[in-house]
Amino acid sequence: MLSSKGYAAQSPTSGLAPFSFERRDPGPSDVVVAIEFCGICHSDIHQVKDEWHNAMYPMVPGHEIVGRVLSVGSEVKRFKEGDLAGVGVLVDSCRVCDNCRADEEAYCEKGFVGTYNALGYDGVLVHGGYSNNIVVDERYVNAIAASLEPKLAAVAPLLCAGITTYSPLKHWKVGPGMKVGIVGLGGLGHMGLKFAHAFGAEVTLFTTSAGKEADALRLGADKVVISKDQAAMDALKGKFDFILDCVSAPHDINAYLNLLRINGVCCLVGLPEIPLPVHPFAMVTNRRSLSGSSIGGMKETQEMLDFCAEHDIVAEIELIPMDKVAEAYDRVVKSDVKYRFVLDLKTL
Amino acid sequence: MLSSKGYAAQSPTSGLAPFSFERRDPGPSDVVVAIEFCGICHSDIHQVKDEWHNAMYPMVPGHEIVGRVLSVGSEVKRFKEGDLAGVGVLVDSCRVCDNCRADEEAYCEKGFVGTYNALGYDGVLVHGGYSNNIVVDERYVNAIAASLEPKLAAVAPLLCAGITTYSPLKHWKVGPGMKVGIVGLGGLGHMGLKFAHAFGAEVTLFTTSAGKEADALRLGADKVVISKDQAAMDALKGKFDFILDCVSAPHDINAYLNLLRINGVCCLVGLPEIPLPVHPFAMVTNRRSLSGSSIGGMKETQEMLDFCAEHDIVAEIELIPMDKVAEAYDRVVKSDVKYRFVLDLKTL
Repeated sequence: MLSSKGYAAQSPTSGLAPFSFERRDPGPSDVVVAIEFCGICHSDIHQVKDEWHNAMYPMVPGHEIVGRVLSVGSEVKRFKEGDLAGVGVLVDSCRVCDNCRADEEAYCEKGFVGTYNALGYDGVLVHGGYSNNIVVDERYVNAIAASLEPKLAAVAPLLCAGITTYSPLKHWKVGPGMKVGIVGLGGLGHMGLKFAHAFGAEVTLFTTSAGKEADALRLGADKVVISKDQAAMDALKGKFDFILDCVSAPHDINAYLNLLRINGVCCLVGLPEIPLPVHPFAMVTNRRSLSGSSIGGMKETQEMLDFCAEHDIVAEIELIPMDKVAEAYDRVVKSDVKYRFVLDLKTL
Repeated sequence: MLSSKGYAAQSPTSGLAPFSFERRDPGPSDVVVAIEFCGICHSDIHQVKDEWHNAMYPMVPGHEIVGRVLSVGSEVKRFKEGDLAGVGVLVDSCRVCDNCRADEEAYCEKGFVGTYNALGYDGVLVHGGYSNNIVVDERYVNAIAASLEPKLAAVAPLLCAGITTYSPLKHWKVGPGMKVGIVGLGGLGHMGLKFAHAFGAEVTLFTTSAGKEADALRLGADKVVISKDQAAMDALKGKFDFILDCVSAPHDINAYLNLLRINGVCCLVGLPEIPLPVHPFAMVTNRRSLSGSSIGGMKETQEMLDFCAEHDIVAEIELIPMDKVAEAYDRVVKSDVKYRFVLDLKTL
């Protein structure tokens, strides 16, 4: 077994504390990654606190993982010792269903194996990136271009917040000539802004906070609308081709559906825990769609990382030591972060 | 002015009674249609009773109109006296917006002029098909193949229930190799069944009524599922490419979203008056979409009527005289009709 150390929760109320554990012996197709940085995703907090009612303890969270390859199994082809590598939200999938075969592992029909708070197909609880190392089958490891090394900490959030916003923008073919809305400027929203702008769309950022305007413009918005300004919202009715809704709190989705032109799509990537009321008239008008999207598959995640290297795109982060994780959680809950916390595993 | 007679409501509670009125003088691009049959759409009842809070009285309802051309203006090219003709849900649109130019008059950016309970762009209240004649600009009149004459009464519902179901099935490219669900076997649902079957899909009809199974199979379903049967519903999770939801009453839309496979679409054509709660997790799983669709444009409506002539598709109807309209309304509200009432205007 491989000795590992990290931070784990022992119960919904325990908080996170130092924890030693073992990972599986690396097999011939496995890559061992020495973790350097790991982002803090809001879903880490939901799961640590068992707010999604599916928690398994002890839980070492973290699925925005970057680091350096420590060793590779005999069958590994794409990595060698010393390479930069990333691990995201999933570490295994069935590999044989239609979706896996189509490089859509995030929609594996058997259900993918999450990076933490999940049982591997062998029934063993797996642990995430708030730790010093991880063992992952090569198929579920992404390469990170050497050019991103100076900004490696800010690459970590690409593995979840990045691909979660990149994937729907690509799926719905966002590009030049399209009017795109991004709702919410947080961990997801700020990446959505950067990608939609990089893809050449005209991008409007919707926020409840007037104070975020300057940041939004800097990050790629052409325009910022305060969503409480009803006159501004009314003026935009029927104008948008695509809206990426990055808000995790309950909110009025119909206000955004009404902004869509014919065949427009509003895609949810934030995950409010309660049902959202949707007005059928808002859907039938302009043949609109309300959609949802998960992370991308492994191939698309690699494409996203390569795109980021080419276009010098990384997340906006606050780098913190491990012993500040509790404070960071409190601030994420209050939306007090610009725009992603990343843990520095050297401080473990 | 053209003298007309029909049945009108004078208030939300008046019910319908004989009424004489005038229509505009036919212009050079107008077609005058002597109405022979008019379908009763559930939306007629909502509007007569002002349940959508937009009623204008006196109101002569009816937008599933078929008849014979009585006269044509000097500029009319597609019709001549004696031709069969149909008029549906709209009688005018701006003709210059992007959507009108793209043959999507149903999504006219200015807002189309409905066939009744609507003001023309000249500000004059227009009246529908529970009447002996109608004056409509050629662009908004559809040709009906002579081969459909023996079944002309059953053609009337194609102008609303037909195109409302045909349009989304075409838009989302329903065809061979696809698993399609139709929810609800009523005026809309029975047309959805016929079209989905004609397009070559494998069609499952979802209903709350066990008694409708034989009819559903006769009308084109490959399989019938009673939606209250939780085990049957669970067994179909993730199996469907497209679901056409034809139910106007509030119902649990998440139960149908969960049946969709990757990139699956559930399209609403029924119009529940209250918001439907949608679970974000149900959307994000399998990148599903909840969509809505209105009637089709004039070109697509013509395509639908031609398809029906070619494939001998008409609605299942109960033909009734005008003086039974109140009784028919009561029965529609109780879903007691197989599957559309059609008024015989000869009895006016």
